[in-house]
Amino acid sequence: MEHGEHLAAIDLGSNSFHMVVARQAHGEVQILDGLSEKVQLGAGLDRDNRLDADTQERALDCLGRFAQRIAGIPRGSVRVVGTNTLRQARNAREFIERAEAVLGHDIEIVAGREEARLIYLGVAHSLADDAGQRLVVDIGGGSTELIIGERFESTETESLHMGCVSFAQRFFIDGNITEKAFDRAVTAARQEVLSIHANYRRLGWQQAVGASGTIKAISQVCVDNGWSETGVTMEGLKKARKKVIKAGKVEQLDLKGLREDRRAIFPSGLAILYGIFEQLSIEQMEVSGGALREGLLYDLLGRFGHEDVRERSIQSLMSRHHVERTQAERVCDTAMGLYRQVAKSWQLDDDELADTLRWGALLHEVGLAVSHSQFHKHGAYLVTNSDLPGFSRQEQQAVAVLVRGHRRKLPLSALSELPDDEQQGLLRLCLVLRLSARLHHARCDEVIPEMVLKAEGNTLSLQFPEHWLEEHPLTLADLEQEQDYFRAGGYELRLVDN
Amino acid sequence: MEHGEHLAAIDLGSNSFHMVVARQAHGEVQILDGLSEKVQLGAGLDRDNRLDADTQERALDCLGRFAQRIAGIPRGSVRVVGTNTLRQARNAREFIERAEAVLGHDIEIVAGREEARLIYLGVAHSLADDAGQRLVVDIGGGSTELIIGERFESTETESLHMGCVSFAQRFFIDGNITEKAFDRAVTAARQEVLSIHANYRRLGWQQAVGASGTIKAISQVCVDNGWSETGVTMEGLKKARKKVIKAGKVEQLDLKGLREDRRAIFPSGLAILYGIFEQLSIEQMEVSGGALREGLLYDLLGRFGHEDVRERSIQSLMSRHHVERTQAERVCDTAMGLYRQVAKSWQLDDDELADTLRWGALLHEVGLAVSHSQFHKHGAYLVTNSDLPGFSRQEQQAVAVLVRGHRRKLPLSALSELPDDEQQGLLRLCLVLRLSARLHHARCDEVIPEMVLKAEGNTLSLQFPEHWLEEHPLTLADLEQEQDYFRAGGYELRLVDN
Repeated sequence: MEHGEHLAAIDLGSNSFHMVVARQAHGEVQILDGLSEKVQLGAGLDRDNRLDADTQERALDCLGRFAQRIAGIPRGSVRVVGTNTLRQARNAREFIERAEAVLGHDIEIVAGREEARLIYLGVAHSLADDAGQRLVVDIGGGSTELIIGERFESTETESLHMGCVSFAQRFFIDGNITEKAFDRAVTAARQEVLSIHANYRRLGWQQAVGASGTIKAISQVCVDNGWSETGVTMEGLKKARKKVIKAGKVEQLDLKGLREDRRAIFPSGLAILYGIFEQLSIEQMEVSGGALREGLLYDLLGRFGHEDVRERSIQSLMSRHHVERTQAERVCDTAMGLYRQVAKSWQLDDDELADTLRWGALLHEVGLAVSHSQFHKHGAYLVTNSDLPGFSRQEQQAVAVLVRGHRRKLPLSALSELPDDEQQGLLRLCLVLRLSARLHHARCDEVIPEMVLKAEGNTLSLQFPEHWLEEHPLTLADLEQEQDYFRAGGYELRLVDN
Repeated sequence: MEHGEHLAAIDLGSNSFHMVVARQAHGEVQILDGLSEKVQLGAGLDRDNRLDADTQERALDCLGRFAQRIAGIPRGSVRVVGTNTLRQARNAREFIERAEAVLGHDIEIVAGREEARLIYLGVAHSLADDAGQRLVVDIGGGSTELIIGERFESTETESLHMGCVSFAQRFFIDGNITEKAFDRAVTAARQEVLSIHANYRRLGWQQAVGASGTIKAISQVCVDNGWSETGVTMEGLKKARKKVIKAGKVEQLDLKGLREDRRAIFPSGLAILYGIFEQLSIEQMEVSGGALREGLLYDLLGRFGHEDVRERSIQSLMSRHHVERTQAERVCDTAMGLYRQVAKSWQLDDDELADTLRWGALLHEVGLAVSHSQFHKHGAYLVTNSDLPGFSRQEQQAVAVLVRGHRRKLPLSALSELPDDEQQGLLRLCLVLRLSARLHHARCDEVIPEMVLKAEGNTLSLQFPEHWLEEHPLTLADLEQEQDYFRAGGYELRLVDN
């Protein structure tokens, strides 16, 4: 029975085979295991476009290991797809029969566009759901997918016949890299993109996102060498091009951040991405962890719609750690009410900040799952370290700071690690959340009174109905303690009991 | 409905009032909130044994704050008990009526023996269930409880009429401390103990445990001044006595580790404990976090029997974080089987080590609740920081090291922080657990073959039935990787495929 909940997706890529095993938990896909092996299937096609015997053996050995891992998972819960090399190989049928026998599961060869759609799905689940069009690029061993989409829907899907394995064989024979060869590879890539160029430029996009090991490796090199802050930039590609040409030989390629096992296909991947950047006038590309195999998992589950993936991540984290929802929602409602009263005067009037506060409030007690003692710290640990699809590192960090700082000392040192322009706003959100948590200390359904919260510079004044504070001595004592905490952060809290 | 799950216990002690709010979760009591206020009810008894008006007001103000906190919790789920001062006060009835009106809940005055039973229950739930008799001592503001018990059952319960508030008033008037007064206080304490002395000495105990803020404060002072490693020793009491007498005045008492708010009743508490140590020939006393209020919670739940509280803690942690039980148990069974084969030759033949391995195996995947990436580290965080009733800090740390070290790099630096004589044993348990986890990588019910594991010095050899490894290529690849990890820790893993 238990295995029924498990799912697996296998991607028989032209460069590597990937397998991911997951289970469905609290409405979210929870990854249990991931295996990758650099089989280089694409390199095993001979002039006749037949997979050679050695490569087939290498591939079947790898599948033997994968097979052992998924032996207990029923048929309907495993999806295995072959991509470009298997689309091309003339003896694919024969190989697939042997592979199916080893795996005990059917293998589908997916068309390029379907591959593109699945990649988009995997990537979309890893990104924040900021409406707006995205261009997603995935450079594989044998093909490169370019997709335009919005939220979970891809609107344009293309699969181009170029990949880092096939380009390496075509342009960098025996690992030799010359300027001429590199530029020929770039030109070839531009020519491939040319066919879709006009349509894609017309549709446009607000954000370019790269998936695949190749683009991740290029991004890593750019960041480690200080050529970009994050992701890939045109500037970084130019610098990498120079270094690669200067090395002259794949074996002499010694770039900071480049893993040994990616060296052989780095020049060809770089040339392809270079061509795409030039042809589509891209200046900056973010990198996503999502890929074909995650897309397969979500597709298996049929779980994708027009929901905000970040909301789902928060809800899933709450369920997973048994957050008491009524309390979380009480604090959240009060926090949002107080926030609205001071958003203007405290320059917090921004959707992103409002979301951050809301998520922080919903999760402020999540650390109770670990221990009551220091639960604000445990909560921050959980928020920082959990997989929260849709969140960027920075967004996740901002929510963690609110959770960390909702009680006890203000999180001044955690704040100092964030960008300067975010610190004041987050500290103020934190103060609003603290008040809300204090007001609901009694955890009951008694209606919180109408309060007037005013902000002026570093002073907050909170006004209660007449006698309310007298009649609620725990709240009074709590808020008096809070006044000391505020002071330590350079803020003043005034309590007005009319 | 949700509030139905909440429980609260209030202890109207002679020195402080304590409230704890909890919920029942996964068979365990999960503390949600704790409030304590130093009301000093005992100090408010006049010569006539009547609670004076000021003290009553102070007490009612405190209860007003508590009341707001528990407003939504139904009657049957709150227990409020008064102890020594309320047992003695001639106007207790009048005060209790006012207090019940403020709280909205009935107050029981518990007899000294019932108080002792409840304290024992609270303490027992905080201790490891090592069979054997314990002496538990709790020094309150107005009375001191001494209990002998085993597991969850108290066999002897006594409540003596001495407490740190009453002794402070009797022997250290206006905060003056003289040698003579101190020794008179010790003698008075010894006289109180004398009445139970013979019976208790006859029953005997293997372990002395102190509860209450007073004993915790004394232990803190002993440890912070280097007079004991942990808990309280006779040696430490003697040194503290000298310092206290030397200070001469409560206001001049400046001891490392002594909190300001405990200063006034420190000399009297010290004298009482000194007398108890002398009279019962105690040399060493451990300190427990459990107390009357926890006893009340467990009593409310009726949850105490002859179970090992540590087993329950592990099971509860597994449930809370959705550990996949079948997999945990598979790995655990295999680990225990392998362990038995090498326990003798590796000097691991010890019940405590066997338990540690079993718990580490059951929890090795607990970190998946946070994220698959680095889940061994998240698991170690959860084990280290969770409330695990029954576990000592060191035991909890040992289990955390196994979880941390069950995959990826051996936990050599985490091990180096443990006592020297534990490091080798834990590393070896860790190697056994790693093999077991690798053998069940496929997570399925296929029977693990009969294996012969032999240990000789730093070499383990694992022998499989003929052809088994060939037929299980994932396991072979996994174990080959494991050989590298073993090597990094100075161990050799030999694989024998007959």
